[in-house]
Amino acid sequence: MINRQVQLVRLPAPGNLSPADFKVAESPAAKPGNGEALLRTIYVSLDPYVRGWMGGIDNYVYPPAPGRTVIGRAVSEVVESADPRFKPGDFVFGETGWNTHPTVKAEAIEKIDASLGPISTAVGVLGSPGLTAWVGMLDIGKPAPGDTVVVSAAAGAVGSVAGQIARIRGARVVGIAGSPDKCDFVVKDLGFDACVNHRSASLGDDLAKVCPNGINAYFDNTGGATTRAVFPLLAKRARVVLCGLVAEYNDPNASGPSLKGILYKQASIQAFSVRDNLHRMPEFRREVSGWMKAGQMRFREDLAHGIENTLTAFQGLLEGRNFGKLLVQVGEDPTRR
Amino acid sequence: MINRQVQLVRLPAPGNLSPADFKVAESPAAKPGNGEALLRTIYVSLDPYVRGWMGGIDNYVYPPAPGRTVIGRAVSEVVESADPRFKPGDFVFGETGWNTHPTVKAEAIEKIDASLGPISTAVGVLGSPGLTAWVGMLDIGKPAPGDTVVVSAAAGAVGSVAGQIARIRGARVVGIAGSPDKCDFVVKDLGFDACVNHRSASLGDDLAKVCPNGINAYFDNTGGATTRAVFPLLAKRARVVLCGLVAEYNDPNASGPSLKGILYKQASIQAFSVRDNLHRMPEFRREVSGWMKAGQMRFREDLAHGIENTLTAFQGLLEGRNFGKLLVQVGEDPTRR
Repeated sequence: MINRQVQLVRLPAPGNLSPADFKVAESPAAKPGNGEALLRTIYVSLDPYVRGWMGGIDNYVYPPAPGRTVIGRAVSEVVESADPRFKPGDFVFGETGWNTHPTVKAEAIEKIDASLGPISTAVGVLGSPGLTAWVGMLDIGKPAPGDTVVVSAAAGAVGSVAGQIARIRGARVVGIAGSPDKCDFVVKDLGFDACVNHRSASLGDDLAKVCPNGINAYFDNTGGATTRAVFPLLAKRARVVLCGLVAEYNDPNASGPSLKGILYKQASIQAFSVRDNLHRMPEFRREVSGWMKAGQMRFREDLAHGIENTLTAFQGLLEGRNFGKLLVQVGEDPTRR
Repeated sequence: MINRQVQLVRLPAPGNLSPADFKVAESPAAKPGNGEALLRTIYVSLDPYVRGWMGGIDNYVYPPAPGRTVIGRAVSEVVESADPRFKPGDFVFGETGWNTHPTVKAEAIEKIDASLGPISTAVGVLGSPGLTAWVGMLDIGKPAPGDTVVVSAAAGAVGSVAGQIARIRGARVVGIAGSPDKCDFVVKDLGFDACVNHRSASLGDDLAKVCPNGINAYFDNTGGATTRAVFPLLAKRARVVLCGLVAEYNDPNASGPSLKGILYKQASIQAFSVRDNLHRMPEFRREVSGWMKAGQMRFREDLAHGIENTLTAFQGLLEGRNFGKLLVQVGEDPTRR
């Protein structure tokens, strides 16, 4: 059995990723030692935080280095287990990286409860992206009836969940997304009250039109020009949930929005870590899975195929070319036909 | 008795103030009606928020308009009173504007308790600038032993108080100020642990050197290049007290710092309103006056003279040319010789 893996050739420079920074390597899959399991990856999850890892931000236990497999979450099936907690055929998820047949410590993976939803959602709406949206929106955004809540990257894995939570909590929800199709989806499928295209030349005016009473909470996944358009529209004591800056990760010289909008409105900006909130996963999964079953929470997936296409798909994510939660399918999903 | 007043000729455009936007007008002082008092202004207090008023931000009850006297706090002596709460000779303070002999409603002024400190401090260390520092530093900055706290405009009216409070609370305090003289004052007179000059070409490196463990709280009065140098040095869960953006008020196209430093460190930025905290004045005055009497809290004043020089002094404030709390003395102070 061969493990195909996407490895770093060298540390990517700040700025756009170069294909020359990566290679696909092959090696025999490792027989699991005591307390380990050999997996067959089904879906590699592509998430923006991986760009931060590549750039060396934060102090990862497994920092980027030449020859290392790129980190990332994935959904897999257990092929062989040397740990009593797992047996062949179990579906699991964990941060097992951009590869097809990893051998991992049992502590690094978790069994998927397929009664909650499709197995792919363990890295999407019922996984870290969903938890990120749930923690950020409820703890910091605090949506309430009467509020106008704006969500950037509203068609994406985190934004789509964040906006639907605000809607469920009774707020008016306005999305910002990158195409008319995405805006259609956000309004018609996800039930947002309005959506504006961030590529519009009149973004600020478009937003002002659909937020006549200002913006009480802003869930920001992107930064960049979108945030510059939002800040002047903030209402008194607005809450900004700083979740991601995908429009700025590739730009080492990125400047930010003027903070005048924050100052003049006694507003706040708060970043947070989903890693600090992993203990709330069970409560989160129960609540969101309930919403899904009641038809109140919808999601959309964008599937690429083949481990060799992972980098290209990831570059698309950083440029907003995906439409929904981006996954790379690298193995058969026996639960779908 | 003649009231000399600085009036708006027209609303200042965004950008630098022009002398042509203002004129000094004279009119007979008005006899106080019932519930009013006629004052003789001693000190006009110059504070950056007045630039916001001129620019039409926020919804002031008394918005800027041609022919209107510029707003601003002042320390005055009562000349004539038609209200039982005041009598001639009382020292009072209030937002009585840039003029020499205003007639004001009794509700707009408050008697100064001269036992707490010199009467000029009622618009300085014991007034709104001090309250601003006290509320922002204690409620948001939350300095504690072991913390490194950075304060911009550290020699100014608000920054000097904010930094001394952090020092009193046991934090390591680093100032940022605009000249070697100011830095000397901040370290030697105010007892900060270090101070760096924001005009240094190597500001980021200078700061990194004196903040080897990162910055746990940042009290920001300036924005601009100073804040861009601070953000990359923030420590995990750092608190940014957004108090002022004096480096950006004059620039309508100002951009801000990248928020990556906030995102990666799960940090927060919080603005606040001193107006929402006026009910805490008595507690604040008691505490800070106690520190003054114990020699733990020092202050410095920068005096200009003559109502006709108010605008020039105010322009200097916006450019950081003042050294300490900036006042314009427009009448004799009988408590000083």
